[in-house]
Amino acid sequence: MANKIPTRIYLSEDEMPKSWYNLRADMKNKPDPMLHPGTLQPVTAEDLAPVFCKGVIEQELDETTRFVPIPEEIQDFYRAYRPSAVIRAYYLERMLDTPAEIYYKFEGTNTSGSHKLNSAGPQAFYAKKDGLTSLTTETGAGQWGTAMSMACAFYGLDLTVYMVKISSEQKPYRKTLMEAYGANLIPSPSNTTESGKKILEKDPNTGGSLGCAISEAIEKAVKTDKCRYVLGSVLNHVLLHQTIIGLEAKAALDKFNVKPDIIIGCAGGGSNLGGLIAPFMGDKIAGKSNARFIAVEPASCPSFTRGRYAYDFGDTAQTTPLIRMQTLGSGFMPSANHAGGLRYHGMNSTLSKLFHDGLLEARSEVQTDVFDAALKFMKVEGILPAPESSHAIKAAIDEALECKKTGEKKVILFGLSGTGFFDMTAYQSYNNKTMEDRVPSDAELEKGFATILDIPQNK
Amino acid sequence: MANKIPTRIYLSEDEMPKSWYNLRADMKNKPDPMLHPGTLQPVTAEDLAPVFCKGVIEQELDETTRFVPIPEEIQDFYRAYRPSAVIRAYYLERMLDTPAEIYYKFEGTNTSGSHKLNSAGPQAFYAKKDGLTSLTTETGAGQWGTAMSMACAFYGLDLTVYMVKISSEQKPYRKTLMEAYGANLIPSPSNTTESGKKILEKDPNTGGSLGCAISEAIEKAVKTDKCRYVLGSVLNHVLLHQTIIGLEAKAALDKFNVKPDIIIGCAGGGSNLGGLIAPFMGDKIAGKSNARFIAVEPASCPSFTRGRYAYDFGDTAQTTPLIRMQTLGSGFMPSANHAGGLRYHGMNSTLSKLFHDGLLEARSEVQTDVFDAALKFMKVEGILPAPESSHAIKAAIDEALECKKTGEKKVILFGLSGTGFFDMTAYQSYNNKTMEDRVPSDAELEKGFATILDIPQNK
Repeated sequence: MANKIPTRIYLSEDEMPKSWYNLRADMKNKPDPMLHPGTLQPVTAEDLAPVFCKGVIEQELDETTRFVPIPEEIQDFYRAYRPSAVIRAYYLERMLDTPAEIYYKFEGTNTSGSHKLNSAGPQAFYAKKDGLTSLTTETGAGQWGTAMSMACAFYGLDLTVYMVKISSEQKPYRKTLMEAYGANLIPSPSNTTESGKKILEKDPNTGGSLGCAISEAIEKAVKTDKCRYVLGSVLNHVLLHQTIIGLEAKAALDKFNVKPDIIIGCAGGGSNLGGLIAPFMGDKIAGKSNARFIAVEPASCPSFTRGRYAYDFGDTAQTTPLIRMQTLGSGFMPSANHAGGLRYHGMNSTLSKLFHDGLLEARSEVQTDVFDAALKFMKVEGILPAPESSHAIKAAIDEALECKKTGEKKVILFGLSGTGFFDMTAYQSYNNKTMEDRVPSDAELEKGFATILDIPQNK
Repeated sequence: MANKIPTRIYLSEDEMPKSWYNLRADMKNKPDPMLHPGTLQPVTAEDLAPVFCKGVIEQELDETTRFVPIPEEIQDFYRAYRPSAVIRAYYLERMLDTPAEIYYKFEGTNTSGSHKLNSAGPQAFYAKKDGLTSLTTETGAGQWGTAMSMACAFYGLDLTVYMVKISSEQKPYRKTLMEAYGANLIPSPSNTTESGKKILEKDPNTGGSLGCAISEAIEKAVKTDKCRYVLGSVLNHVLLHQTIIGLEAKAALDKFNVKPDIIIGCAGGGSNLGGLIAPFMGDKIAGKSNARFIAVEPASCPSFTRGRYAYDFGDTAQTTPLIRMQTLGSGFMPSANHAGGLRYHGMNSTLSKLFHDGLLEARSEVQTDVFDAALKFMKVEGILPAPESSHAIKAAIDEALECKKTGEKKVILFGLSGTGFFDMTAYQSYNNKTMEDRVPSDAELEKGFATILDIPQNK
């Protein structure tokens, strides 16, 4: 007998969102503006023009348009792999024997293996629209790099990807996949940029970091004709694109009159979390919902739970505008032992503001607990989750078990942002019990905080 | 604007098939019966009882029941990852600039990465129903082993997987994944069985073969209490379970009154091809359709296009019943250089009969052509196809290009049986242009044919 609420809820193509939702337009307290690092004044479109495409600059700076129409060409791109399902976790509920209803929005069925494609497509489209011929970007775990490789193959653009060196060594298959899509892969730090050379001079054996790869990709873009830079998280236009996740999830759940009480997302730079929660948070701000929102981050890179709310650079070379955000300092280096993504020192400014204002909760988890949750999940739900996404699974299981204690029938929604097919070495180390949990000491955090600028705005 | 026929056609949970379809019931010329290798008489349920579960034996021998009800428990299992989408390949059509309509049924969204789970679930269920505590099986490329590991985790059964040694070395991540699901992996040939020891004595450095791993798994099952053996392809009960693919595809296409003119599947043992074509072939046999059916096999293991239609063993140690099928001989060893699955010496008896009677066409492809098609496909359709499935993509592209020449608007349906996330070394060798095509010489084939029994039925 079929379930009253089906295991997988799909929207029809007609029901797919035609606009993205700009949460900032509904926020009573807006996030603080990006500042020019020289003048400490809010950045202008002109300031950003050498680095980014016109389309995304407009979106980045727009705090007032509530619904931003999705161009037909991008809707066409989305239809190649969307809508994605909201899945009722009947099998997980049964295993946990919980009165809670658990749902997850699954973004892992495309080849990039994650939600990243939702912003890669639009960013490649806007580049094409500007008449560009190439793009640069960075990638850590490789999901974003793969997504951009796919999007550039789709729109016929050249792409150079600076891949964090240690990741490119640990994940040769990610490289193969990006190259199959025609991308040019460069392990970072490299000798192809000044910022890369500087870092290599200081430490020739460094494994690199996302902040450093960003510096190289920006430098390369600025110095190349008809080329711009694209970023896969942290910025507000990325979150805007990712609201397709939350909008689809909400529309799917609304069909069955399901209202989530708790909404959970993993958080690195915030793109998946921000995209998932946006429309639900809009309801909360409007007083139409009492939902709780939970960000789950790795204990090894705890920008929400142990970071500072301050203006900071987005990259190690300190070339980007300043963003007021939860940050560990642009000089913070997460432990190499940490599996998967979620290794960025900062957090999107909108999410940071929501956290600062008490609208968003956050917790951190060590990775063995996260993989333990992943294995529980995959055994009954039949999907191999990405380590990143498994942070959300961990929190969803904990909340469902809490419901078991209290007897409450809460409705939990979490984001399953991607699959773990390229993370098998991490699963291997978990199986073999060689996986270690590394949590930064207070002294290590202080070292990162010391790289935050001492400016009036940070007093 | 949404498409008139959506990119992805999903059935609702209510519309999912409640029965499998037994094509043999509608065949005017039935496949020849399995024979006991000692008596050369048709095998009985008793003959098979030491090896297989009761439920599958009944299905294997049943040539008359047209629709076999799917037990509610298996429907529950299917709902964990089904229905799967039929996808209109709008983007591929656009790239090829063909008047043809191309559709594919995509079975790769579950963690096993293929259609194999459709039979793994039922086989584990029947084992549980018989009160067994463990199962044994073999796996080559690893899709079937992963699927059985998932199914056994779901139903709480122990599983021992004999994995073709060369595959277990080339694909350590497959091992990791199966172990994460709790399976016990043994590279084959091994010292855990008599048949394994015999093969190792002859050739201690052998990379193994599927036929040899089957021998070991059967031996282990027969010698273990409350244990049976399960097989992922070749046999008719496996094809029966896989008809869920074709039934869903037909129901989805019927919604939009789409009638395929050409139906294409890759073929190794035949489970994916047989499952996809069954209901469409039933229509053809009933005179209700003029569709063409095309099996696509690797040139390195050409059981359809260069094999013999003869009674042969299913395994190297020659312990199984005799099956009349297209075969290269149970002693045939496919080139180690061949990527992915589709390396079995024989072909399902029903498909072999259809081929023999002219109802099913077959062609073979060399692997560099297959990977060339895979890359074309993944760049526009956004799915990383398994090397196996890419054989079908190759033929679909060729047929679509033929339509471009003739101007015909044919409707092409192919089976995209799985994803290639565990085949990145093969993609790497294709990228690096180190991939080679190996086609067996006539002399090599003769060596295989020499292992086919010289019995009256084979005259």
